[in-house]
Amino acid sequence: MTEVNRQILLKKRPVGAPSVDDFESGRDRIPSPGDGEVLVKNLYLSIDPAIRGWMSDAKSYLPPIGIGEPVRSGTLSQIVESNAEGWPVGQIVQALAAWESFSVVPAANLHGKVKTIEGIPLSAMLSVLGGTGLTAYFGLLEVGRPEEGETVVVSAAAGGVGSIVGQIARIKGCRAVGLTGSDDKCAWLTDELGYDAAINYKTADLRIALKEACPKGIDVFFDSVGGEILNTALTRLNRRGRVALCGAISQINAGELPPGPSNYLQLLAKSARMEGFTTLDFARRYDEARAALANWIHAGELEYRDDIVDGLENAPSHLLRLFTGEHRGKLMVKLADPEV
Amino acid sequence: MTEVNRQILLKKRPVGAPSVDDFESGRDRIPSPGDGEVLVKNLYLSIDPAIRGWMSDAKSYLPPIGIGEPVRSGTLSQIVESNAEGWPVGQIVQALAAWESFSVVPAANLHGKVKTIEGIPLSAMLSVLGGTGLTAYFGLLEVGRPEEGETVVVSAAAGGVGSIVGQIARIKGCRAVGLTGSDDKCAWLTDELGYDAAINYKTADLRIALKEACPKGIDVFFDSVGGEILNTALTRLNRRGRVALCGAISQINAGELPPGPSNYLQLLAKSARMEGFTTLDFARRYDEARAALANWIHAGELEYRDDIVDGLENAPSHLLRLFTGEHRGKLMVKLADPEV
Repeated sequence: MTEVNRQILLKKRPVGAPSVDDFESGRDRIPSPGDGEVLVKNLYLSIDPAIRGWMSDAKSYLPPIGIGEPVRSGTLSQIVESNAEGWPVGQIVQALAAWESFSVVPAANLHGKVKTIEGIPLSAMLSVLGGTGLTAYFGLLEVGRPEEGETVVVSAAAGGVGSIVGQIARIKGCRAVGLTGSDDKCAWLTDELGYDAAINYKTADLRIALKEACPKGIDVFFDSVGGEILNTALTRLNRRGRVALCGAISQINAGELPPGPSNYLQLLAKSARMEGFTTLDFARRYDEARAALANWIHAGELEYRDDIVDGLENAPSHLLRLFTGEHRGKLMVKLADPEV
Repeated sequence: MTEVNRQILLKKRPVGAPSVDDFESGRDRIPSPGDGEVLVKNLYLSIDPAIRGWMSDAKSYLPPIGIGEPVRSGTLSQIVESNAEGWPVGQIVQALAAWESFSVVPAANLHGKVKTIEGIPLSAMLSVLGGTGLTAYFGLLEVGRPEEGETVVVSAAAGGVGSIVGQIARIKGCRAVGLTGSDDKCAWLTDELGYDAAINYKTADLRIALKEACPKGIDVFFDSVGGEILNTALTRLNRRGRVALCGAISQINAGELPPGPSNYLQLLAKSARMEGFTTLDFARRYDEARAALANWIHAGELEYRDDIVDGLENAPSHLLRLFTGEHRGKLMVKLADPEV
């Protein structure tokens, strides 16, 4: 084991969109786990919009990342030293750790032991069978609660979460309509993922396009974008419709809070509901969700695509790609292979 | 029976706040009920914010009131001619009718037979035991879903609905905090209705006042006001908090849609929920709610105050008082006593 812990630190809080200058490289000693903690070697970093949120000092479900601290991140990691009962050395885990070679993690931030599944690569445990898949699963099924025959609209539909949400909607017998930012990605949604319709929100008149793609209105809007996309979708919401708030990638870089959705009173007119969630709300049911997702993969009903780069030093630029909308599927950084 | 049907008609759609010039008096023949309809004599008109909504041509759960038509209104009425099975002449009913002496109402718009309850005046069937009380009951208990020990904040707390919501919250073992627009009304809330705290939002720094009045944060926000009050309350919402959207009296007169609540992403950060409703969503459970409300009144746990003026011609000016915030409790117009 090397003696050095390579890190990517938060240098300053971004103003607007993050840039590579907001980060700096660091080196530290490999830390030692205290009581109830483990030392892990990080194998894969999960690149998620939530990281941008943690870089701000706004109040959220977790405290902000401190300046000079390694960037917080979901990871796939392997335990190399353990002071936590039930978490043996060698175990591969999903963890809330950081952009660094090694992390000390309290047992409370270990989100499950990873059992590799035949025919599914280890990295998928961080995407379709990890936080991304769990977000799609619980957000759609428990917050959106679609019924067979209903219409489910998904923003950021070609992203890691969105590309899974639309497929689960299709599996559940719903009409799945995806919003994304290029014709290529629209074609991917309909031709490969089985979305019933896709809208390029950059070129379409969204109001008209939604009307055409959703002739029976919108029953569930799964939103990771916010801003005008959310505001327009609200006008097409059906009676008793549901908006599952997964994020607001269009707003996340805003320096000041942009105006909220002026059409929120559609919730009143339609007896509709808008609800936020995190996967942590459903922590006790992760196994159930992973089993369902794995079954759909094995049955050939659920496709997934991971967009993986190698090397810790590439984490900042990979994160930035989240906001340019160039990617398809789940973004990850690979740091190491597990030791057997 | 007089041969003339006196009416108040919608003359033009208000721009901004309604004025008495938006209405005009009319006279018509007394209409005849068709198949499945009844002719009612209207006894009391319910003066509600919803009427302002129906005066606009915005899409809602009911179509707009047509120009030149009598103003739609909830009423307490007595059936004088019936072509609808099960709705006999003489029966007093809650109806969706209009600002006129007599209305033809389809059976679908008859919202229950009124049984007077000893010790409770007939007019209360339109307030605490009518739509007002039902709105408070279902909005708080079914949308807000407060648990014992939680904090419930109510905007427009001295209004017809709000004055009941806070009392139900108190009965259910919650901390009830009311927002209203004068110190006198604050005193009424705490001294007579049993609110635990009241805030004069016109003189207080709402953010600070909410922090002080809700040391454990807000679990349920029952909102009839919208605008900056909603936006500020969102910042104090607890994890898994709920916003029951009952209305937006601060926005209802706006010509263009004002900005939405920029803090709506608190719903995401807190896994919280904002949900609209109307009492129609719970139509099958009206009897249950009325029984519960009547029991609380008889037990001396629930107070109510009705603000009643006499005469159809006073309906427009009474409606306007909804928006000045001068009233306490439920606004009604009395047209006639029932015939026995």
